[in-house]
Amino acid sequence: MSSKVNLYRDYINEYLNLYFKDKGSYNKIIYDSASYSLLIGGKRVRPLLFLLTSELYNKNYKDVIEMAAAIEMIHTYSLIHDDLPCMDDDDLRRGMPTNHKKFGENIAVLSGDTLLNEAMSLLMKFSLDNGGNALLASREIAEAAGPEGMIGGQIVDILNEDKAISKEELLYMHNKKTGELIRVSVVAAAIFANASKEDIEILNNFGLKLGLAFQIKDDILDIVGDVEKLGKNINCDENKNKSNFITLFGLEYCERECINLTNECIKLLDSLSVEASELKELTIDLLNREF
Amino acid sequence: MSSKVNLYRDYINEYLNLYFKDKGSYNKIIYDSASYSLLIGGKRVRPLLFLLTSELYNKNYKDVIEMAAAIEMIHTYSLIHDDLPCMDDDDLRRGMPTNHKKFGENIAVLSGDTLLNEAMSLLMKFSLDNGGNALLASREIAEAAGPEGMIGGQIVDILNEDKAISKEELLYMHNKKTGELIRVSVVAAAIFANASKEDIEILNNFGLKLGLAFQIKDDILDIVGDVEKLGKNINCDENKNKSNFITLFGLEYCERECINLTNECIKLLDSLSVEASELKELTIDLLNREF
Repeated sequence: MSSKVNLYRDYINEYLNLYFKDKGSYNKIIYDSASYSLLIGGKRVRPLLFLLTSELYNKNYKDVIEMAAAIEMIHTYSLIHDDLPCMDDDDLRRGMPTNHKKFGENIAVLSGDTLLNEAMSLLMKFSLDNGGNALLASREIAEAAGPEGMIGGQIVDILNEDKAISKEELLYMHNKKTGELIRVSVVAAAIFANASKEDIEILNNFGLKLGLAFQIKDDILDIVGDVEKLGKNINCDENKNKSNFITLFGLEYCERECINLTNECIKLLDSLSVEASELKELTIDLLNREF
Repeated sequence: MSSKVNLYRDYINEYLNLYFKDKGSYNKIIYDSASYSLLIGGKRVRPLLFLLTSELYNKNYKDVIEMAAAIEMIHTYSLIHDDLPCMDDDDLRRGMPTNHKKFGENIAVLSGDTLLNEAMSLLMKFSLDNGGNALLASREIAEAAGPEGMIGGQIVDILNEDKAISKEELLYMHNKKTGELIRVSVVAAAIFANASKEDIEILNNFGLKLGLAFQIKDDILDIVGDVEKLGKNINCDENKNKSNFITLFGLEYCERECINLTNECIKLLDSLSVEASELKELTIDLLNREF
């Protein structure tokens, strides 16, 4: 892990740590609950991708942290709602009780709502403060999070519990559920930083492939992963009769496909107008991760 | 009801009716579910307030419908999540099965998320298309919907089930839960339409008082209302051991307070730099409503 990635991750954590600190009165529990899930750990993949891409086009990480944090808030809200009893019904997330296990279902629903709402409000504030392409980048993020993006993937995931799923539908599901927010983390950074149309297009393709590789790796870890390192139970999909890349294509194929996609990602980064060594390193780290 | 209110309400309904029409593929059910709650009826109080206020400052209703619709989407998402089994556990809304009764809890959570996300994305699109103060008005709406606004009120409501509540906390709860979105419906319209600072301040106070009158009237109807007309069960708060204005102040006081607040609202509207007869009429209609 490069020292820059560590520096950025620390800064993201510090920013998020302070975000809801000492806020609230009668409503204080909503900040406790939202902070709990926001600060429970996590690799911070999406905000890191955002900050590393911003840097390629000379945007300092401290100047764009609000947009990076908004993306992480959207990711966190989606985890809180996904874990609910009426959804995936998970008790553990990153080795800790899930939000509804800790705070109750009603607070968990509302703290998910709070994080989504806050993310959007923060994107608007950032756009007011920064002008330029900030609002265009914000709209990209909002669309990627919505019913044609992340939520759309989640719906298809739910509909297909206990069902065989076609390869086409599985791809749709993962490209939306995991892929869209990863894709938009690099694309929104490039849009805000006024990257060229060509570079934005390359980063869009990079993001799509990285999102897919990331999800396949997730499915692999769900089979062969270490519960301790993962901080969540394994064999989740099998236990819920969910189709995933492994059930449809087999483990060996998936491991190969993960390497292929990563190589394609590196090639795409090599074709940018700028040198992206830190992004390449993060891409390879994500392939080799154990949690 | 003035003919303009009817015209505007029809236009709001038409816009919302077309909004998700023919959208979706594998994810189609999310649009069906979101549309179901969006189109189930409702008085359209918030978008009407928005359009009537916009008109005071020469904004044509057709030109600002997107912002009005976004506010109604936020209101609708909050109803879907409020009705969930882990929240108020309501089976009926506007005389029809609540969203989770019709589509299941998991879809209901996600269609609430969809409506919130879509509202924010629509506000960003509107701001991109219109420039000026649109983004400032959008941020006001986002903040009013958030943990210091509507969600904050909902949290306090939940925390106080089966508990006696102080008058101070009850006021906090209702000013946030119902009041903030009503207040911001008039304030955001005035901000976008470049109303004077003085008029914005007057409309802010008007919105606060109207929101409070609206909630007290709701509590009155919960006691003396007609189930058929209301389209929902009565005595809900009593059955859930919730404090409200009636349990704390008594019916007679609340009926008087509702009239007082309405009179204060009319006085505030009279002090605007523009003539607001349609807004006055709507304010009085809200006081006299039976559902």
